[in-house]
Amino acid sequence: MKQTGGRTDLAVELREDFSEDDERIKGVTVKEEYYKHRLVHVSTVRITDASGARAMGRPIGSYITLEAKGLAEGEERLRQFVAETLAELLLRLLKSVSPEAKEVLVVGLGNREATPDALGPVAVDELVVTRHLILQLGEEFRKKYHLTSFCALAAGVLAQTGMESGEVIKSVVRELKPDVVIAVDALAARSTKRLGTTVQITDTGIYPGAGIGNNRQALNKETLGVPVIAVGVPTVVDAATILRERMGAYLEKRGVGEEEREKILEEAEEENGQVLFVTPKGIDELVRRAGETVAEAINLCFCKELI
Amino acid sequence: MKQTGGRTDLAVELREDFSEDDERIKGVTVKEEYYKHRLVHVSTVRITDASGARAMGRPIGSYITLEAKGLAEGEERLRQFVAETLAELLLRLLKSVSPEAKEVLVVGLGNREATPDALGPVAVDELVVTRHLILQLGEEFRKKYHLTSFCALAAGVLAQTGMESGEVIKSVVRELKPDVVIAVDALAARSTKRLGTTVQITDTGIYPGAGIGNNRQALNKETLGVPVIAVGVPTVVDAATILRERMGAYLEKRGVGEEEREKILEEAEEENGQVLFVTPKGIDELVRRAGETVAEAINLCFCKELI
Amino acid sequence: MKQTGGRTDLAVELREDFSEDDERIKGVTVKEEYYKHRLVHVSTVRITDASGARAMGRPIGSYITLEAKGLAEGEERLRQFVAETLAELLLRLLKSVSPEAKEVLVVGLGNREATPDALGPVAVDELVVTRHLILQLGEEFRKKYHLTSFCALAAGVLAQTGMESGEVIKSVVRELKPDVVIAVDALAARSTKRLGTTVQITDTGIYPGAGIGNNRQALNKETLGVPVIAVGVPTVVDAATILRERMGAYLEKRGVGEEEREKILEEAEEENGQVLFVTPKGIDELVRRAGETVAEAINLCFCKELI
Amino acid sequence: MKQTGGRTDLAVELREDFSEDDERIKGVTVKEEYYKHRLVHVSTVRITDASGARAMGRPIGSYITLEAKGLAEGEERLRQFVAETLAELLLRLLKSVSPEAKEVLVVGLGNREATPDALGPVAVDELVVTRHLILQLGEEFRKKYHLTSFCALAAGVLAQTGMESGEVIKSVVRELKPDVVIAVDALAARSTKRLGTTVQITDTGIYPGAGIGNNRQALNKETLGVPVIAVGVPTVVDAATILRERMGAYLEKRGVGEEEREKILEEAEEENGQVLFVTPKGIDELVRRAGETVAEAINLCFCKELI
Repeated sequence: MKQTGGRTDLAVELREDFSEDDERIKGVTVKEEYYKHRLVHVSTVRITDASGARAMGRPIGSYITLEAKGLAEGEERLRQFVAETLAELLLRLLKSVSPEAKEVLVVGLGNREATPDALGPVAVDELVVTRHLILQLGEEFRKKYHLTSFCALAAGVLAQTGMESGEVIKSVVRELKPDVVIAVDALAARSTKRLGTTVQITDTGIYPGAGIGNNRQALNKETLGVPVIAVGVPTVVDAATILRERMGAYLEKRGVGEEEREKILEEAEEENGQVLFVTPKGIDELVRRAGETVAEAINLCFCKELI
Repeated sequence: MKQTGGRTDLAVELREDFSEDDERIKGVTVKEEYYKHRLVHVSTVRITDASGARAMGRPIGSYITLEAKGLAEGEERLRQFVAETLAELLLRLLKSVSPEAKEVLVVGLGNREATPDALGPVAVDELVVTRHLILQLGEEFRKKYHLTSFCALAAGVLAQTGMESGEVIKSVVRELKPDVVIAVDALAARSTKRLGTTVQITDTGIYPGAGIGNNRQALNKETLGVPVIAVGVPTVVDAATILRERMGAYLEKRGVGEEEREKILEEAEEENGQVLFVTPKGIDELVRRAGETVAEAINLCFCKELI
Repeated sequence: MKQTGGRTDLAVELREDFSEDDERIKGVTVKEEYYKHRLVHVSTVRITDASGARAMGRPIGSYITLEAKGLAEGEERLRQFVAETLAELLLRLLKSVSPEAKEVLVVGLGNREATPDALGPVAVDELVVTRHLILQLGEEFRKKYHLTSFCALAAGVLAQTGMESGEVIKSVVRELKPDVVIAVDALAARSTKRLGTTVQITDTGIYPGAGIGNNRQALNKETLGVPVIAVGVPTVVDAATILRERMGAYLEKRGVGEEEREKILEEAEEENGQVLFVTPKGIDELVRRAGETVAEAINLCFCKELI
Repeated sequence: MKQTGGRTDLAVELREDFSEDDERIKGVTVKEEYYKHRLVHVSTVRITDASGARAMGRPIGSYITLEAKGLAEGEERLRQFVAETLAELLLRLLKSVSPEAKEVLVVGLGNREATPDALGPVAVDELVVTRHLILQLGEEFRKKYHLTSFCALAAGVLAQTGMESGEVIKSVVRELKPDVVIAVDALAARSTKRLGTTVQITDTGIYPGAGIGNNRQALNKETLGVPVIAVGVPTVVDAATILRERMGAYLEKRGVGEEEREKILEEAEEENGQVLFVTPKGIDELVRRAGETVAEAINLCFCKELI
């Protein structure tokens, strides 16, 4: 049987499609924690076996979700808490995939000219890259400020460059040979409450454009040869998902059975050819703020003393 | 009984809430025409009496809607056709409200920093204003190039300026005493097919911010003292409207009666606190292109020989 | 005899054209102070009589110049010091021209689309305006957070709007009746060392566009009916000024007399028709940072507890 | 003896440092032509031997300069003429270095966030790349519209990415194996009259950042393994160059000998530590327009029937 909740890039939302005791997800564990005076909620979904991966439709690995309810409203202290927590979790994940990482490449995916898809380029713009400084000023400089060497690239999108962003990234990885890649991308969620309030990090890599309606070349250890950590923030909800959620709730309340419900929902969706997204009115502000938060977390990881 | 189609700024969509022979809209006329090899469709809705105004929830006046299906795709020839048709209809409307207009003020409403709401500022940026040139180069210059004197203002939004855009516009109108004001603003539609493909012009003025979730001071002959022509392009659909449309269609098909349907829909909407919008993925491109088209039409009206 | 140093908007540079004991500037006083661990230098030039005003070519009033050498390099702590000092001096000047100011209008002059001239619009974008909040939330809210009501406007430039920015501002002042206007604008300096490192505030008002090659309508108590405080940061040096400075220095060294020198310099300048500016390579960054600093100072004055 | 005219990226300006009969430049030829009703002037400087290369300080190859006096003023017809002429000359140069080129990579050098240096990224934004379309739609599509497959990349700058733009480009060239690279970059000229009015194309490659004060890794056949055509437009004049030009002219007029003159000029320059540029006031507009013109020429070369 297929999943019922609509498209999402968040493992934590996919997990909700299953009941606690569902046999198929025996190999999927969930851990909940709180950070920063309980203002930041962290769920860690771990897919540990092939059956869980099949059921969830995601590779084996860790999917960590930070959530802070007021984040989209732009309270500065909360944003700071999220950036710090994200930095901590990111460093931990980094250590687990590449304990001795000396060189990191950060790639910003998505389209600078399409606001809901601009998270990657916006974040990359705010990074305080260190690779060239360390090359110029030497090992002593690196040690003095406890830096990790990292560089950054906004790879553009196919329609702008004529190249898959994966092709560009693969080339640069081959030339630079970083120990690990961090890929930043906008995500799709099912719930509008997650827009701008949630950050997901995972050690399983990324599928460029997957979040917003395309399905392209994966970026992961198989394709790039080095571990890939993905960092994403939901900026859109598929319009069909909203419909599914609201209508589904209604039908359930009216006592319509699951199979019948699924049929009805599929029918309703079919009328809709265009890919449409639901975004909050302040999408520009949301993307700007989310990009800055992700960038700050990465800067805290690699060049805390320079910012 | 209330209207059933969800929120819209388009008179042509409001009209669809009524059957042809509804008594309440006896005073509402509709005329359909085609322009430019039938590529541009024009509907003119005229509200001629108080009963029609009450039923439609809009003031007495003309509401002209241009539609060109492929406009959002960015075919240049079609965009040109729309700009030319829009210029023609705009000039006609202008003549009808102010036959001897010598001085026009164009105001761009909305928020430059929020893409779906940026139509007004984007359009104003592309205008080739003439007022200062005519003041500097004199009457002869005006005659030589068959110019109409016009100037332009992006009034900003309350949260940016601390002033209602209406306050700013009213001040400038008092100082400059234009014969007519043209106000450009982003609109909300009910149908996602209208996003970026429809332009509405009306001689009844505008309600700043109405299109995107606010309800502010009207800009019309009563408040400004001069006729106000509004030009708008739908850039968003209220998420609740989509839900209403799709779920309504489903319920109707299942034979649920109108009253029951309305009750169900209201219930479904209530769960949703946030104001959410549905936009196409390429909203940045859509707004840019729509703003350029509106600006080109206005330039064609007032300074054709300078562009 | 005319001034010899080239065009500048800074009183402190104009003052350098005179020797200490020059009779004409008996009525011009200069005071030097240091703030913030001597990192911020403040000069106050006061023109107190008509003779001084004539000699300096500036109205009677106070011209306060802050200088912090590294400001253009973007050291965050220094930027903070400058913002705080600027806020302190601005509040003091404000009190001196309008002791009971309850309502302030901030206007950003200049062209958003021309980087060296964009200081005003950039600063206005960063303001946390309060007027609408106080109108909505009431007197209690104002008191609780110790706010001063202020609003803000980027008036655009003649070529974009067809209106003098002075016309727009005058209209809005008439409608809103603020107690005082603060006008932010980019300035021209003589010395390239001042680009992005100096802020001038004055209680004598402003001449829109004067700083960058235009001479328009003054904004001051006479034209607006309320006191006008101008805040400016040099972003350009006139290319002719550089030439004059360097060539003048050379000629003086070679023993060429003042009158002869002046003649030679005028000749050299005449060959140059275009208005050209000297800017540092990082002009975009400089303007962004200067705009943020000015905005932060204004926010500290009026809504310290909201930022 | 050293060159006397100041820094420039234009071969046509370097050529002016020598008299017609100078022995050192026997191997440097100049051809002058006019296009488009004599509105577009084209000079072709050819460096054909090692002595010429040494004297000119540039590699052996062709340096073609288009000039159209009013181009910076933005007359649309003239811009069109320049784009068409540029396309014609570019195609010819392309054929001469790679007669059977099937795949082209266009790289935009420079910093998107620093206006005078943004020519490359601005041009790349306006390209109608075809590589992905041909890969998707096949050989037939390519033939039908007479396309050449090309893709594009804005490589960013060292301070933003931590990587030399040359490193990024080299990686991508290795992966994609294009037949030829076209590199677009902002240039420095000696004469302010050339700002925005001149385009230089050359088959000798490019030195990223050379134009604006940096000296980095060359991009040419040796470093990339494929021919590199550079396209550039002057956007700045070094402030020292202006000084040199004006003061030099004055000194010459006063009868100061060449050697003495050079000594004086060097002295005057030494006082100036900072790298300062002279730009016209409307630098944003100039760069936007120049970038669009270059992009249009490239589009005309490779996908004329799609634009």
